[in-house]
Amino acid sequence: MALDFSKYFTERTKRRHDSPLKSLLKYMSNPELISLGGGLPNPDLFPFSEFSTQVVKPASSFENDNVELLNVSFSRNTKINSQLEPLKGFMQYGGGLGVTSLVNFFYNHMKQIHQPKYDNWSVILSAGSTDALNKVTELFMEQGDPILVDEWSYPTAIETFTSAGYPMVLVKMDGEGMIPEDLDQVCSNWSGSRPLRMVYLIPTGQNPTGFTMSLQRRRDIYKVCQKHDILIIEDDPYYFLQFADAPVVTKEEETEEYFNHLPGVEKLIPSILSIDVDGRVLRLDTLSKLLAPNMRLGWITTQSNLLQKIKFHNETTIQQPCGISQGLASTLLNEVWGHDGFLKHILYLQKEYLSRRNAIMSSLYKHLGDMVEVTAPVGGMFVWIKINLPSHLESKPGIMAEIFDTMIENNVMLVPGWQFSPVTNTDLVKDKPYFRAAFSFATKCDLSRAMERLAIVLKQYCHQQ
Amino acid sequence: MALDFSKYFTERTKRRHDSPLKSLLKYMSNPELISLGGGLPNPDLFPFSEFSTQVVKPASSFENDNVELLNVSFSRNTKINSQLEPLKGFMQYGGGLGVTSLVNFFYNHMKQIHQPKYDNWSVILSAGSTDALNKVTELFMEQGDPILVDEWSYPTAIETFTSAGYPMVLVKMDGEGMIPEDLDQVCSNWSGSRPLRMVYLIPTGQNPTGFTMSLQRRRDIYKVCQKHDILIIEDDPYYFLQFADAPVVTKEEETEEYFNHLPGVEKLIPSILSIDVDGRVLRLDTLSKLLAPNMRLGWITTQSNLLQKIKFHNETTIQQPCGISQGLASTLLNEVWGHDGFLKHILYLQKEYLSRRNAIMSSLYKHLGDMVEVTAPVGGMFVWIKINLPSHLESKPGIMAEIFDTMIENNVMLVPGWQFSPVTNTDLVKDKPYFRAAFSFATKCDLSRAMERLAIVLKQYCHQQ
Repeated sequence: MALDFSKYFTERTKRRHDSPLKSLLKYMSNPELISLGGGLPNPDLFPFSEFSTQVVKPASSFENDNVELLNVSFSRNTKINSQLEPLKGFMQYGGGLGVTSLVNFFYNHMKQIHQPKYDNWSVILSAGSTDALNKVTELFMEQGDPILVDEWSYPTAIETFTSAGYPMVLVKMDGEGMIPEDLDQVCSNWSGSRPLRMVYLIPTGQNPTGFTMSLQRRRDIYKVCQKHDILIIEDDPYYFLQFADAPVVTKEEETEEYFNHLPGVEKLIPSILSIDVDGRVLRLDTLSKLLAPNMRLGWITTQSNLLQKIKFHNETTIQQPCGISQGLASTLLNEVWGHDGFLKHILYLQKEYLSRRNAIMSSLYKHLGDMVEVTAPVGGMFVWIKINLPSHLESKPGIMAEIFDTMIENNVMLVPGWQFSPVTNTDLVKDKPYFRAAFSFATKCDLSRAMERLAIVLKQYCHQQ
Repeated sequence: MALDFSKYFTERTKRRHDSPLKSLLKYMSNPELISLGGGLPNPDLFPFSEFSTQVVKPASSFENDNVELLNVSFSRNTKINSQLEPLKGFMQYGGGLGVTSLVNFFYNHMKQIHQPKYDNWSVILSAGSTDALNKVTELFMEQGDPILVDEWSYPTAIETFTSAGYPMVLVKMDGEGMIPEDLDQVCSNWSGSRPLRMVYLIPTGQNPTGFTMSLQRRRDIYKVCQKHDILIIEDDPYYFLQFADAPVVTKEEETEEYFNHLPGVEKLIPSILSIDVDGRVLRLDTLSKLLAPNMRLGWITTQSNLLQKIKFHNETTIQQPCGISQGLASTLLNEVWGHDGFLKHILYLQKEYLSRRNAIMSSLYKHLGDMVEVTAPVGGMFVWIKINLPSHLESKPGIMAEIFDTMIENNVMLVPGWQFSPVTNTDLVKDKPYFRAAFSFATKCDLSRAMERLAIVLKQYCHQQ
């Protein structure tokens, strides 16, 4: 059984509760009853007869020639032998959890992949992890409450915490992400007037550093969180985009040889959720990187009594994710691809992003040499590049802005490191010698050329040996 | 020019600002630049080739036999001669405003229908008006700040205000909604420690009362708000579902005779937005009642500098509404139906809901007689029924619960009035003699039968003359 964290709810969370109208639902099961209760528009007046999409077969993409397409649709009529809802089930108002067939899919997915270790866990749909992050923090955090974060972190999370008024408490990182000993020290030495209650983590392919926490690192961080009674936000959009010990190789054919080094689904580094026995992890998943971002469809996994409050929060904000997105995702995942097809597609994405990582890293190693320091990413979409500046430039004010401008002159753009700093006074971080390179979007050819151009830039600052 | 209300922003609103990453966008216009900037998944890996739906021709529905269907779709390839975005424009991450072609459609729609009277107004997309309501209140309201509301109001709005910790200050209503003189008095006599800043109104077919504010009423309320410097939330989902002076008649054929009494588009009672010269109205529109609720698609219209803050709020919550919903709506409204078809469809909905109103009201007049008092709704989906109880029952504790139970025994359900009361102590309102009947959902035949059953119930309590 999970621990009870409801004692940490904010006043606002405590005030969230079920609509009194829900108490009328129990009468609806009587087929003789005429209900004038629900303020619902008439579904016969919805102008839509069906929604459909054409998707690739699992493990293919529009980069392949002659890609084969499958039809995915839901319509006004219930399909024979289908467990899925008809169109009005997806397109009418519904509760804050999401539509049952899709909630069930993700529940079973989590059970199979993450095997939570306590009983009363469940899932709720989100309109993507950005909305989910706002909601899981608001469960426990009031304006002024501090939140533990990596010393470099995801800008949208930083903006979420900044606008909410949560002072960010920085924890140091190494090539495996947040350092447990530093987390322990920060918590032990904490002298703020409000307690440290939550830590924000991106355990796989962290944004911006690309660092991935090993299993041991996850266990160590979890232990420290238990010691100090910290709740963990596990924001894990890149979970399936892990590359394990596939080496950085130069040629596409070589990359393909190492596809069997990829972790598949079974050998992924287990999530922090999967080692959580207390119910202190609030895990955020999303289809944004697995299907498409603007489906605005994700799910949150944690204790049911925490999800209950998020459900009420949904009911005064988004209600639930878009019904077209839910209907097409539910049909695709439950019936067209199935769970096996979904996993097959995800393994394909591992390969695709591995190819891209290898394109950028092999070119980086070749052209940048010891002008930079990097940890080759074993997951995600990012490389964190530290520039090895000679000592006379290291302390020069404005040096990083100067290098950025030279990049732009040379037609290559990476994001300056300070944009990922939770430190409010940007002057303190403007000249930290880091850049983030995303290898998700550009073509493999452009990834390689970008590193060549970056070499031309850096040679003007660093004296290559 | 609009007045500047930014002085009333909350601390949280003041802290909302643009992501620093946005400063990089200006470099993207250079086609020679290789950007490794955006952390975007690769759109070639989105598995979708197109999204489509089948819709009825404007001014028809699935209640018609042989309804004719039109195809609506957007795909990976830009259509020839189309102003619309291709699939990746709808399905990739985007800014907090929404996709341009749809924002433009609603901007032009507002310009044509509501003709705002000041310059710097604009629109932003919302994931429906529930999310929009939360966001417009959070611009100006901190926990503890009071909000002005009708004495009976929409449960989700009440729940939004309750959970946010906004004490609700009640203003009396008559058959035209909020009474301006009472609003003036409440504001003039206000002695709370925090100022009254916002009023929440549903001007057309108010939920739960079905009351519609006349143009004069809207002007009078606006004037009082100017006097006391109150911002107005105009939540108007039923705007197009107005029945004007179409009389309540019994037979379907008679209802059809009076279709030409419907206001069409031109003779709708003007919105409060359209009489706003100060930029103090935050207007919420939604497709929920015009197309389908779970499209989760609406729009907010107000001053641009307020929308800017809502855009930042979107960027740390929903990002923007679902791209499939946006893409299909944009294609439908811009290209398949067009604005004329959209308006034609809306006029059809006026007729459909008028038929339903006439079905319930004619049966109500026939069977309930003077056991009840009602204002025949001239818009929306609801009738507010006051039970004329004999004086010995009026003061009997639990009488309304008893009547509700008798309704259930007689297989008819209306929603007890107290569920729409903003009063926290429900004991004070449990026995107010009101029920809300929705005429949107049940069949016309059932609407009529429901009133017959209600008559059987009420005869046990009221002594009909």
